[in-house]
Amino acid sequence: MPMLDALAEAIGPRNCLTDEGDMAPYAVDWRGTSRAMPLAVLKPGRVEEVSAAMRIASEAGIPVVPAGGRTGLAGAAVARPGAPPSLVLSLERLNRIRDVDARDFSVVAEAGCVVQQVQQAAAAVDRFFPIAWGAQGTAQIGGMLGTNAGGIRTIRWGNARELVLGLEVVLADGRVLNDLRRVRKDNSGYALRHLFIGAEGTLGVITAAALRLVPPMRAVETAFLAVPSPEAALSLLGRMQGAGAELIAFELMNRLCLEMVARHGPHLRLPLPLESPWFVMVEMAAPHPAVPVRAMLETALEGALEAGECTDAVPAESEAQRLAFWRIREDFPEFSRMDGPAIATDTAVPVSAVPEFLGRIEAALAARWPEGRMYAIGHAGDGNIHVSLKAPPGIAQKDWAAIAGGADMVVNEIAVALGGSFSAEHGIGTSKLHVMQALKDPLALELMRRIKATLDPQGLMNPGKVIPSN
Amino acid sequence: MPMLDALAEAIGPRNCLTDEGDMAPYAVDWRGTSRAMPLAVLKPGRVEEVSAAMRIASEAGIPVVPAGGRTGLAGAAVARPGAPPSLVLSLERLNRIRDVDARDFSVVAEAGCVVQQVQQAAAAVDRFFPIAWGAQGTAQIGGMLGTNAGGIRTIRWGNARELVLGLEVVLADGRVLNDLRRVRKDNSGYALRHLFIGAEGTLGVITAAALRLVPPMRAVETAFLAVPSPEAALSLLGRMQGAGAELIAFELMNRLCLEMVARHGPHLRLPLPLESPWFVMVEMAAPHPAVPVRAMLETALEGALEAGECTDAVPAESEAQRLAFWRIREDFPEFSRMDGPAIATDTAVPVSAVPEFLGRIEAALAARWPEGRMYAIGHAGDGNIHVSLKAPPGIAQKDWAAIAGGADMVVNEIAVALGGSFSAEHGIGTSKLHVMQALKDPLALELMRRIKATLDPQGLMNPGKVIPSN
Repeated sequence: MPMLDALAEAIGPRNCLTDEGDMAPYAVDWRGTSRAMPLAVLKPGRVEEVSAAMRIASEAGIPVVPAGGRTGLAGAAVARPGAPPSLVLSLERLNRIRDVDARDFSVVAEAGCVVQQVQQAAAAVDRFFPIAWGAQGTAQIGGMLGTNAGGIRTIRWGNARELVLGLEVVLADGRVLNDLRRVRKDNSGYALRHLFIGAEGTLGVITAAALRLVPPMRAVETAFLAVPSPEAALSLLGRMQGAGAELIAFELMNRLCLEMVARHGPHLRLPLPLESPWFVMVEMAAPHPAVPVRAMLETALEGALEAGECTDAVPAESEAQRLAFWRIREDFPEFSRMDGPAIATDTAVPVSAVPEFLGRIEAALAARWPEGRMYAIGHAGDGNIHVSLKAPPGIAQKDWAAIAGGADMVVNEIAVALGGSFSAEHGIGTSKLHVMQALKDPLALELMRRIKATLDPQGLMNPGKVIPSN
Repeated sequence: MPMLDALAEAIGPRNCLTDEGDMAPYAVDWRGTSRAMPLAVLKPGRVEEVSAAMRIASEAGIPVVPAGGRTGLAGAAVARPGAPPSLVLSLERLNRIRDVDARDFSVVAEAGCVVQQVQQAAAAVDRFFPIAWGAQGTAQIGGMLGTNAGGIRTIRWGNARELVLGLEVVLADGRVLNDLRRVRKDNSGYALRHLFIGAEGTLGVITAAALRLVPPMRAVETAFLAVPSPEAALSLLGRMQGAGAELIAFELMNRLCLEMVARHGPHLRLPLPLESPWFVMVEMAAPHPAVPVRAMLETALEGALEAGECTDAVPAESEAQRLAFWRIREDFPEFSRMDGPAIATDTAVPVSAVPEFLGRIEAALAARWPEGRMYAIGHAGDGNIHVSLKAPPGIAQKDWAAIAGGADMVVNEIAVALGGSFSAEHGIGTSKLHVMQALKDPLALELMRRIKATLDPQGLMNPGKVIPSN
């Protein structure tokens, strides 16, 4: 096949996989639901090779699926089953930190850098890269930007988008848009970079990014709390926001979450008995040791206990205990997966609407699927709660999908009715196309289609993702 | 003229000005350089009226120039002289705060709200709206977003763009894109709102915005410093960033700036003698009174004096003195205008490149225009320095433009060579079109033109602004 020969010549035959065994890992992502074998898996090592590969694919009219660490939850980074054959473009070999500058609080990282690698590069110059979530040891910068990842630090430093100073992008036709500046202010025309961030590879291939760093936190205090209700959690959030230090995490979870941790993670010690309906993990910090973070946390916890906003609280007494608290939160997705099938969602509502959101959802799900077990876990400090409806024990994924397949739309519709989003931080991929079709403003969809047609007139950039077909 | 009749009917005859005397204020902006009389000035009071007006204009094929407080410095908000007749669409009557929510840290403001009005609405619920600059008492939210305004707080809270949660936009054909959500995380497709922010009304009319608020600062300390050089200022910046409190302003200015203040603002008392080549204004703050901001500032100042990063320092001893410091900074543009003609720029470079930038520029300008007087003032904490070349006394604007008209390109080219921007916070309007043509990446320009054609196929939205004609 002449296209494959041209690709092998452009990026080297070793970096152009066509053997099914070699390609198998690239045909599946973390969630494991999307499986399709590509024509080839391309592993270019430099932006010029990405450019050449895109030009060759474009001239041949073959779709390209950009892929990173494949930890995404929406199916964007794998080829679609049943679609025309495509190329998977893995950015993993573009994994250099091109520059890190402490005085500028910036890092320039290639798309294939693992998120943790960027965190470490920042730490090496006494700076902090704040994007963090469970998959950070595998997820790559390109995927983080393609999905505009959120995670546990959004409450303080925003989503991935907010940390981008500049991008290098290879367009559908292979041309390179170099806007990799480290400047904090630039109003020279339209903010093109924001089109590519969150577009899940449907408008171009992000090959490198200039990212903002922040001062490292010199004092960090973490506590695990038992909370009587989401209303109480909301009051607690307000109290913590006014406690004096920076609130850098505020995670809410219901009892079912911790029950699953207890069941599947017996090596993890739960900080509190499983007697409360809700739990909160809170983390406060300051960039200077002179800020009395521990005293601020303790004062806030005492006030919260007095006000009934929490019924019990355990501050971490050591860094080891603090990390143990985080293991509970970060390993949770794995425990949940071990606990059987679920209908999962990724909703966000205005922070003040979180209690009403949870109340309405709990009632609606219990009414239709009384056998289901609802869990809610998420970043309550920014309104992003992941609600899932777990199957009762012994039911297979396929059967539960048939029974409770409509549960996601119940949750999504309530989120949207409260002014929220049905896709907070995971993206659309293929798994939420039906929700885009049903709940997204048709005018917004029309504009997205027109922009897609403008930047990718042949429709070869990760087709069938993000935007539902007409 | 049937179009004008239709407009008068849609928005009320009183809100459709056609008398030249009534329209005169709308034919000129703060800088006073752009003068053209529109066909009519429209003052709709509701988004539905904006929609109707846009539909009528679109059907008649007449260009529309959105306008706010007309404090812009690039000429975007007035009709172009010599261009086909257009309508000026003033958003001033869309001036309601639709919602302000302390728990959500959000405000929903219409485009015609004055920036200060939003600051006050936030303060009334014990929250802080951080965008601030000299013109905040006149500038409106629509213009703030259309130009992605920066100002003195960017170092801590970013540009206007970073504070936007959602937008309401009327498109060129009159359709309303309602994305006015207050949610912190939303990854449901392309981030359309970022196209309209900073587009200076060339892609649509922003009619309202949901904006992020932040916790109010409970302790604020400000100091005026004499600094020997930009290198010293950069070291000082690093010291202040690590001093413990939040660094919420870091303004750098050379002696000429304060000489102009002394000359034209005799009512203002300068905090320090005019003996230093450079001065810095620094402001540190904390959201909680328990953070020892004053002690942190004083420790940092002592260290800076010892290290030679500054030669003198005056902390404000009262709120009145603090505000007096800010009067010097905020009234400076007026004093500069009174001091005669200038070739002005709006550049940004990476923070670490500020000293090299200023050194190269000073040398280059002095070599070509030894009679010119260079001043530099700006937000050094985010790399945004405004360099101007003032005429010697007694020279008219027209003559100085003929003599030193190339000075802006000298400055802009050095900024771009250092990885910077030739348009940091004022936008392009008409006054920087020649710079866009000369220095912007042609591929970026091509994408902007294609996006413009996609969203505004008739080319009626503020034509001739932002994007140079081919």
